[in-house]
Amino acid sequence: MKLILIGYGTVGQSFTRIVLTKQKELVEKYGFSPKIVAIVDSKGAIINPEGLNLKKALKIKEEGKSVAVDRAYGHLNMSGLEAIENVEADIMIEVTPTNVKTGEPGLSHITAALKKKMHVITTNKGPLALALPTLLELATQNNVYLKFSGAVGAGLPVLDFAKKISLGDRIVAIRGILNGTTNFILTRMEEGIPFKNALEEAQKRGYAEADPSLDIDGIDTACKLVIMANWIMDKETTLRDVRVEGIRNIALEDVRDAMKRGFSVKLLGFINEDLVVKPTEIPKQDPLCVKGILNAITFKLELAGEETIIGRGAGGKETATAILRDLLEIAQTSVIM
Amino acid sequence: MKLILIGYGTVGQSFTRIVLTKQKELVEKYGFSPKIVAIVDSKGAIINPEGLNLKKALKIKEEGKSVAVDRAYGHLNMSGLEAIENVEADIMIEVTPTNVKTGEPGLSHITAALKKKMHVITTNKGPLALALPTLLELATQNNVYLKFSGAVGAGLPVLDFAKKISLGDRIVAIRGILNGTTNFILTRMEEGIPFKNALEEAQKRGYAEADPSLDIDGIDTACKLVIMANWIMDKETTLRDVRVEGIRNIALEDVRDAMKRGFSVKLLGFINEDLVVKPTEIPKQDPLCVKGILNAITFKLELAGEETIIGRGAGGKETATAILRDLLEIAQTSVIM
Repeated sequence: MKLILIGYGTVGQSFTRIVLTKQKELVEKYGFSPKIVAIVDSKGAIINPEGLNLKKALKIKEEGKSVAVDRAYGHLNMSGLEAIENVEADIMIEVTPTNVKTGEPGLSHITAALKKKMHVITTNKGPLALALPTLLELATQNNVYLKFSGAVGAGLPVLDFAKKISLGDRIVAIRGILNGTTNFILTRMEEGIPFKNALEEAQKRGYAEADPSLDIDGIDTACKLVIMANWIMDKETTLRDVRVEGIRNIALEDVRDAMKRGFSVKLLGFINEDLVVKPTEIPKQDPLCVKGILNAITFKLELAGEETIIGRGAGGKETATAILRDLLEIAQTSVIM
Repeated sequence: MKLILIGYGTVGQSFTRIVLTKQKELVEKYGFSPKIVAIVDSKGAIINPEGLNLKKALKIKEEGKSVAVDRAYGHLNMSGLEAIENVEADIMIEVTPTNVKTGEPGLSHITAALKKKMHVITTNKGPLALALPTLLELATQNNVYLKFSGAVGAGLPVLDFAKKISLGDRIVAIRGILNGTTNFILTRMEEGIPFKNALEEAQKRGYAEADPSLDIDGIDTACKLVIMANWIMDKETTLRDVRVEGIRNIALEDVRDAMKRGFSVKLLGFINEDLVVKPTEIPKQDPLCVKGILNAITFKLELAGEETIIGRGAGGKETATAILRDLLEIAQTSVIM
């Protein structure tokens, strides 16, 4: 199975690292041998129809360079769109940075790949939050899959879990901590660290998005709500429909005051009648009340009551496992392995 | 699709109640109209190849009688095995009480139905804990499904979640609260209620198994460990392989003492190298540390870290939703709806 990988930051590199280390296991356990034939980063592409040398690609990135510097297979300045146009592949994996204003360049990459009848796997929240219904329709028209398990909850299969519990029952409401960075910051604030310092620490540790306002102003959470509302609850909504308030104005004393009363301040996303993101006090014994970079999502069901899932909602390796899961699911329903 | 329902206690009745109330929705949303053609309780059967009147069956049970008293369709003293032998159906649903010594009568029901090429759905832990590998093989030989989503976690899809996160990753260990009754008792003990009184309260509320020793001596938890070890982790184990210690000897002061140090005493099941059930102190901030009848299970993954799911792990209605989910999954891959 031939893959194009567009976007070669933390998630893209983690994915190739996992493919490298799991190579033998993937063949033995699933009869699956993926061949990455193109990788595109912000400065160009590397292409080999026989399958790229991933070790070499990773080494070039670790040296801080573009994959395009490779002499034999590099193409300086080649764009993702050009790679999709020129390279034959079964699946395109889109992991460029999230842009919530235009969805670009991800939106164009996904659209072009689907039109070329490639399956698409993405963890890019921008295009999904802006155009999920349209993209799903385009996938159906072209008889290919559009999978995005890693876009919500990273490795934690939030979307699949929700689909499973919906079968024969009905999700009436969702609330959750959907952003690990803000949860890390709020946890540190409970330990007495001021907001600014906690944010710096999150950035140093690599938790925060490139533009931290996506995290702390609640936009990342809002994107995930939109994806869940569309995909799980058949609500046709976009980012504009979400009422969003971030954690910029939370003071140390707000956090301390809540703690004294047995509560924690958390940035929660809600799906009820409306979609809302806002800092909320929750009781310490609520299953949602998790610490650090953990995400936690509670689904309220008509029959089975409340069900909660908890796990690391961020991280390159974690997100890459979701891509691999999507990939194996496509492979298992496909003839080309 | 024609169904035989064997066992008509809390779970069986809840299931027919859901089928009744969801009739229209099942047709509209899934094109699925199940027809229950036989119900068997401990005193006999009621059979109608055209589909039973479920309202009437429920009313008879509410009056404390056997379904077999029905004049037109009742068969006094007909056994489950005789019903399987004599009634044509696509699926047999087995929800008789759990027997961990012999697995009977469930084991014989499941075996007979599979041999007659019926799909089987069960929530009966006895036969599964004693003979899961054999039963799965029998199902495969006869080209039918054996589904048991409700046997672990009731409505909470523990087994399906575990399968999903295993894809491309690997579960290295599992630990969890798998029995709601003991968790309810231990929670009440934290509130100062002695063990005996808390157990009585659990029985009054209908949480405890018919034989409460299954709960409090850890046997129910052990059964669930065996099912998970076999199904999720491909470990061929049986009940005899589990080291089991229940909560009978936990005193109020043990619970109080742990609380003072920021811990809660929980009855945990562990799957590592060995299968172990034992009362364990866990920190209050551990996602596993849930209260009341909730279940919570943490899966430790090679790549994605720890993932936890939490929900009501008991209850007739909750368990019945798992049966409906299994049923819809069979229906969706079958031609007869």
